Amino acid sequence: LEQVHLGYFDWSTSMPRRANPLPLALPPRDRHTPAQRWLYDAVRTAILERRLTVGARLPSSRELALSSGLARGTVVAAFEQLQAEGYIESIRGSGTRVRRVLPDDLLQAPRSREVGTVSAPRRRLSRFARRARPFAPVRAEAPRAFRPNEPALDLFPAALWAQLAARRLRRATWSLLSGSPALGYLPLREAIAAYLTTSRGVRCTPDQVIVVSGTQEALDLSVRVLLEPGDRVCIESPGYVGASRVFEAAGLRMLPMLVDDEGARPPSARNARARLAYVTPAHQFPTGSTMSLARRLAFIDWARASNALIFEDDYDSEFRYAGRPAPSLQGLDPHGVVLFSGTFSKVLFPALRVGYLVVPLDLVDRFAAVRSLATRHNAVLDQAVLTDFIVDGHFGRHIRTMRGVYAERLTTLLGAAREHLEDWLDVTPIEAGLQIAAWAKRPLDCARLVTLAPASHLELVDLGRFSWDRSARDGLLLGFAAVDPAEIRRGAAALSRLLASFAGSARARPRSSSASKLIR
Amino acid sequence: LEQVHLGYFDWSTSMPRRANPLPLALPPRDRHTPAQRWLYDAVRTAILERRLTVGARLPSSRELALSSGLARGTVVAAFEQLQAEGYIESIRGSGTRVRRVLPDDLLQAPRSREVGTVSAPRRRLSRFARRARPFAPVRAEAPRAFRPNEPALDLFPAALWAQLAARRLRRATWSLLSGSPALGYLPLREAIAAYLTTSRGVRCTPDQVIVVSGTQEALDLSVRVLLEPGDRVCIESPGYVGASRVFEAAGLRMLPMLVDDEGARPPSARNARARLAYVTPAHQFPTGSTMSLARRLAFIDWARASNALIFEDDYDSEFRYAGRPAPSLQGLDPHGVVLFSGTFSKVLFPALRVGYLVVPLDLVDRFAAVRSLATRHNAVLDQAVLTDFIVDGHFGRHIRTMRGVYAERLTTLLGAAREHLEDWLDVTPIEAGLQIAAWAKRPLDCARLVTLAPASHLELVDLGRFSWDRSARDGLLLGFAAVDPAEIRRGAAALSRLLASFAGSARARPRSSSASKLIR
Repeated sequence: LEQVHLGYFDWSTSMPRRANPLPLALPPRDRHTPAQRWLYDAVRTAILERRLTVGARLPSSRELALSSGLARGTVVAAFEQLQAEGYIESIRGSGTRVRRVLPDDLLQAPRSREVGTVSAPRRRLSRFARRARPFAPVRAEAPRAFRPNEPALDLFPAALWAQLAARRLRRATWSLLSGSPALGYLPLREAIAAYLTTSRGVRCTPDQVIVVSGTQEALDLSVRVLLEPGDRVCIESPGYVGASRVFEAAGLRMLPMLVDDEGARPPSARNARARLAYVTPAHQFPTGSTMSLARRLAFIDWARASNALIFEDDYDSEFRYAGRPAPSLQGLDPHGVVLFSGTFSKVLFPALRVGYLVVPLDLVDRFAAVRSLATRHNAVLDQAVLTDFIVDGHFGRHIRTMRGVYAERLTTLLGAAREHLEDWLDVTPIEAGLQIAAWAKRPLDCARLVTLAPASHLELVDLGRFSWDRSARDGLLLGFAAVDPAEIRRGAAALSRLLASFAGSARARPRSSSASKLIR
Repeated sequence: LEQVHLGYFDWSTSMPRRANPLPLALPPRDRHTPAQRWLYDAVRTAILERRLTVGARLPSSRELALSSGLARGTVVAAFEQLQAEGYIESIRGSGTRVRRVLPDDLLQAPRSREVGTVSAPRRRLSRFARRARPFAPVRAEAPRAFRPNEPALDLFPAALWAQLAARRLRRATWSLLSGSPALGYLPLREAIAAYLTTSRGVRCTPDQVIVVSGTQEALDLSVRVLLEPGDRVCIESPGYVGASRVFEAAGLRMLPMLVDDEGARPPSARNARARLAYVTPAHQFPTGSTMSLARRLAFIDWARASNALIFEDDYDSEFRYAGRPAPSLQGLDPHGVVLFSGTFSKVLFPALRVGYLVVPLDLVDRFAAVRSLATRHNAVLDQAVLTDFIVDGHFGRHIRTMRGVYAERLTTLLGAAREHLEDWLDVTPIEAGLQIAAWAKRPLDCARLVTLAPASHLELVDLGRFSWDRSARDGLLLGFAAVDPAEIRRGAAALSRLLASFAGSARARPRSSSASKLIR
């Protein structure tokens, strides 16, 4: 790098003036950098790199202006800034000098452009951070067959959303820009309470509704408020990985509950010491079964008897293709033992990051306190636009429209599966949701199969990764909502070819590593 | 309530058919309720209220259709729904019966409209939740003089923001609606890194930037990743309450660092065992002092020597009225011991809930993992609009505009204080920020004074509430950004009258209760 000389700096630290002045090399001035900024940066860097030592005297602003060709005002302003920030000091009778109070050892440390590269410090991480594993890496590409857990984003009425947002912003009031209570924007909490009461059989007032960023925050918040490391929690097996990530990071001991056609089996006597059970009664993830009333009541009985709580994840309940939506487990609970949670990620779009958590009245204040110091509250504009979307009737309309779209896609998938996949997969009939469990009719190494899917432009998910015990069955989770019928048909044909070529090499699926983390 | 009879239900639980049928009273049908829904609800309620006991036989759908005048298809559909949900079962040779497996005791529990009112359960809360105290209750009303910590929201270009949002939504791509990585929307992280490098002297790449919902989430996240209950943290005194709330809830021991004209004093040898120091070097909250270079270097030295970390809250650094913004402490750190945090709450608007946290490279993955399971990521549309706002140059323009506005308001406050408040208050000269510390010239019970402020349409904040030790001085925090010059002048005159009437009654301010929580 070409360097320029900027006058003579007195490197000595003794008091007499003009002793042994030496030239100081400074970096060249970039055309885009203002002179004052460049001079400031150059001198500061020289000080920090110890090319100008503590106590060294700087030339006067007049001398420097002359030698550098800069305006004297520019030099004075740069020096004032350096002085204000404590790099240099003006001592009567001794001129301007690099401050003596700078700790020498720090100044001798080599500089680097990147923080952390000079010396990698010994890090002490919390136990929580050491246990935390990343969850749900973002998908960088638009969906192919059979991506699960994603709605048809191309059909979301983004223009309508933009209109509602513009209307809110045109009338932007002080309150829209200032903030909301920790529990959320009150009109949205009212709209959610009305929706949940009517459509989900939830018994709640708006006071019990907490607007959160989604199921993940609802779970994390609940664990922080209610549990301690070492506590036991019951989790469905197969079940939702996002929940297991929270429990694992919190240092909880996970007890698997097996799932059958009636949903999860309530904790046994042996599991009576668990403090919380996480369930998906409306539409079990990933098997799709709906929890029977008997099971629901047994869960409530268990929770009451054990002084435990139930976390009801009302996952994908909105999209039901047969029968009437089963009312929530929370609505059956007269004891206040159920936390009820849902999200707008699937009904609207995941990037919105708005969901809800309904808690028993006596717990509201504790949740509010924790939320207020952790994330404060959700963005208010999003909450206001969502309120309008619900109250103006667009929400109900959108759900009905999408239910029709998804029903057609489900029919397409079932037809294509009959045509192409019947030899391999037993596709579970489902009544609700955006995906379907396809169980292998013979042993199939699905963990390996899914690694071969991208070459066939397929997205496959191994059902085995959701099991926390050794009872896992071979199978695939097939999403049908995110892509159109043509892509579903292409996908089924491609999967059929992939299965045929994979056939000979199928082996027993290796055990999932997560299973070993659970109590048996 | 008027009740209707719907045929005859067999209340016996014995197997023979048609034994002792009795009428069952069902609630009247609302005109707006579809027949199927009404029948379903009525029978389900009767089961849950034990008016239909377990094992009781229901009439056949044919009988029920005849007796009720409903279409048979309606009755069949309602029964199918009840069966699907496990309320009733069809037993060959025995007709349709209420399921036997319902736990009796639960069904006998009285029903209530409100969850949690039947029996208030004994709650077991986490230690974290028991320590958590609510922070920053939302302000329900538009600001009066002298509300601190709030920008001039009426001057935010909401229409421009709406245009940017509409432009994004018109072209709404799959990726805008689907989600972002846990660390944030990459173009925003790039824009923030460029801004921080240029304007704040932060040394970072976009990889180190985490988009969070604000300083509060940045603090909470950092504590969760790095600290354990019982660890010691150093906190400025007087200092930011939001930080103390996080530390307190996490069970940390807080060591106060006194603040003077050069900012916070670095931890003493006695405090060397602290694992983190929280500082506001650019503009100390609430005193307004800027940390000297010597102090900054001493903090870095302390952190390196103690294997501790520094949390730099770059609070209100954007609005500087004198001198050039002091570069960040993070930019002086070659060791990777500084976490740097800031927020768009004051520069743009608080309801946006977007801020940033810059962490050393080797810690990025741990923060990402924790974020992915806790709140996933911020809403993507807000991040995209903010990116456009920055990249299109509106951000820089808005800061310059507002700096002019706030400089005028600061001048107005200083003038009004000279005119009205000089007998009472010593107003600190500040170079940056949205508020000013006004120290009492004689003993003044500010805790009591602020309770009298609303009657004078004033918003006053007692500086004593920010002190974590017994060194607190009497004074008020006066915000000048949120209201216009006329309101500032009115406020100063009103405060002068309030102080005069309060004069005789001034007493020593009672100790803040939070002070007792700290180690001395």
